[in-house]
Amino acid sequence: MDLEDTLLMMPGPVPVAPKVLRAMSKPMINHRGKEFSAMFDDCTAMLKEIFQTQNDLFTISGSGTASMEAALGCTIDKDDKVVAIENGKFGERFKDIAARYGQVVPLEFEWGQSVDLGLVEEKLAEGAKAVTMVHNETSAGIRNPAEEIGKLAKKYDALFIMDGVTSIGGDDVKVDEWGVDIAVVGSQKCVAAPPGLSMLSVNERAFEAMTKENLPYYLDLKAYKKSADKSQTPYTPAVPLFFGLQEALKIVMEEGMEARINRQATGAAAIRAAMDAMGIEMFPQLNEFSDYSNTVSAMKAPEGVNSNDIKKGMMDKGIIIAGGQNRLSGQIFRIGSMGNVAPKDIMLTIQELELVLKKLGIVNEIGPGTEAAASVLDTL
Amino acid sequence: MDLEDTLLMMPGPVPVAPKVLRAMSKPMINHRGKEFSAMFDDCTAMLKEIFQTQNDLFTISGSGTASMEAALGCTIDKDDKVVAIENGKFGERFKDIAARYGQVVPLEFEWGQSVDLGLVEEKLAEGAKAVTMVHNETSAGIRNPAEEIGKLAKKYDALFIMDGVTSIGGDDVKVDEWGVDIAVVGSQKCVAAPPGLSMLSVNERAFEAMTKENLPYYLDLKAYKKSADKSQTPYTPAVPLFFGLQEALKIVMEEGMEARINRQATGAAAIRAAMDAMGIEMFPQLNEFSDYSNTVSAMKAPEGVNSNDIKKGMMDKGIIIAGGQNRLSGQIFRIGSMGNVAPKDIMLTIQELELVLKKLGIVNEIGPGTEAAASVLDTL
Repeated sequence: MDLEDTLLMMPGPVPVAPKVLRAMSKPMINHRGKEFSAMFDDCTAMLKEIFQTQNDLFTISGSGTASMEAALGCTIDKDDKVVAIENGKFGERFKDIAARYGQVVPLEFEWGQSVDLGLVEEKLAEGAKAVTMVHNETSAGIRNPAEEIGKLAKKYDALFIMDGVTSIGGDDVKVDEWGVDIAVVGSQKCVAAPPGLSMLSVNERAFEAMTKENLPYYLDLKAYKKSADKSQTPYTPAVPLFFGLQEALKIVMEEGMEARINRQATGAAAIRAAMDAMGIEMFPQLNEFSDYSNTVSAMKAPEGVNSNDIKKGMMDKGIIIAGGQNRLSGQIFRIGSMGNVAPKDIMLTIQELELVLKKLGIVNEIGPGTEAAASVLDTL
Repeated sequence: MDLEDTLLMMPGPVPVAPKVLRAMSKPMINHRGKEFSAMFDDCTAMLKEIFQTQNDLFTISGSGTASMEAALGCTIDKDDKVVAIENGKFGERFKDIAARYGQVVPLEFEWGQSVDLGLVEEKLAEGAKAVTMVHNETSAGIRNPAEEIGKLAKKYDALFIMDGVTSIGGDDVKVDEWGVDIAVVGSQKCVAAPPGLSMLSVNERAFEAMTKENLPYYLDLKAYKKSADKSQTPYTPAVPLFFGLQEALKIVMEEGMEARINRQATGAAAIRAAMDAMGIEMFPQLNEFSDYSNTVSAMKAPEGVNSNDIKKGMMDKGIIIAGGQNRLSGQIFRIGSMGNVAPKDIMLTIQELELVLKKLGIVNEIGPGTEAAASVLDTL
């Protein structure tokens, strides 16, 4: 199998458009010159639109984890309490990062279970400097209640630090309206740029909370702000990734955020319809404040089946889907509908999945899944 | 002027070979798959050869500053003393990073002055957990005495943390022989890969010194070690930059380190010969343990001339050289000979520089600089 012929249907990295790939082949430029600054400003303006924010917005050369750490490392000192909401692997990561800097008040739900807002309020009422939550929990395919957490954070005077790594650019995320003090996204997810950059919005309230003596250095958000005022980054940026990001963001702007969100949501709905038709259960347990993710769908492996066999069967067909991470390994499989994934990519994935599931003895006939997906995608 | 037609003669980012640029346009791959792991292992093996080390070697998606911070952030706790040698901007950066984590014992020399080993020994004799030094001080064009500092560090039981950002891959750097406990390089310098990655070697002694309670998270070297044992990175890597790095390292291997070092050193010698012929003074003040840099040459602006005018004159000709940074702005100009810079690039730079200097009234005739450079380059 030629690696370049595989179809990536994972929750990131996502397929990157040929013109984005080509942009990365441009010869190097001086990152202190005016050409880089123009590109930097262009990217920042487009990102603010995608984040629906007027806040400062920075691009860090590093993964989403780097920006998650920047958010906590700059605001949390050793005696500060952080309510860390966890219902999946990335919620756990936020908790782990918070533990390096302050006092974690863990609020753990089973991975894939919904967040109980009453419990969040109880913890916040006891006093905390910040609350962290993953908006779209990639590991479990569940969308958590960001707007509601924003209100609670404001009520109890805590910062709301949100991982929007796999929602911003793919879902309707209203950073300012919801009162998200720091929101983080990764380049290789819904905006369909190459991996290696992460972006975060930071509001005044968050800057005012940066009172600790020693901020991290590479992830010093005050340094990013100072440099951004000169349309630069404080340290050498990953120039080729900026070339790619700029092209990827232009594609987002050309499609328009409303159409983009609708396409990704419809893709996820088509996947869910197909699963329902094939008798495959969705993994998340919803309540009235949560929902299935619009960018990554997580399904339970049927009784007696290891989800890695499904993943492997798909890989043999040239389609890369994701299994479960850590404690969910073998138990769930996940299909991304994020980025520039087209209806035909979803159709191919479902068709091949039906064949794989039939071979594994999970479904008896070919057709119902494909037909269900098609009927949803036809609404686009 | 078309930006893509400029010649980068700066101390990084350096021109990147077309096949390195093309490699970055490859479609994305899953960074948890075996193809990424094979590339990861290939890069690591080549880098160990370039570092002349058997130590662990990690590649961080982030600039050289990120790796400098990883080195200090993982080893230095708040009461630990760090002797921070400074004779330029990057020595100052090491000092600033160290101050975020521990107690700095500053050892400042004028930028461009040589390091006084006697003073280093005095400070180390008072006890310190680590000593930091920039091997090749990019901002001042001076090479500092790494082998000697390695010996002193060992004698006084301190870690030697070395910034080899612009020496490793361009100069003969013997990480293991000299006893460098942690050595750092940047991708966009002597190995001529795109910017955005940094690499560091870490020995057992350094790992044993990581006794603090909370390491940084994104820059947690223990996490890098754990993942490297599985041929992976702990967090999403900048995949396109790894594609580029691998090709760039292959070019280094094809040339061979001995030839590569000789070519870069000869380039720097040619630049110095030209300056001497044109009556331009070198900036560094050497002693018996220091030397001119083999990868970036720093020159004083002649009396009454602002070096930015020289830089601007060159830019108008399509050649990007560097001025002075921070306190040296306007006072010096710098020309890189690092990476894949060819003799013809140096010849063009010197020819154009002569014309610029003549226009500025600094030299009276065209020819002596060019001829001096050519006679040195002819030895290649």
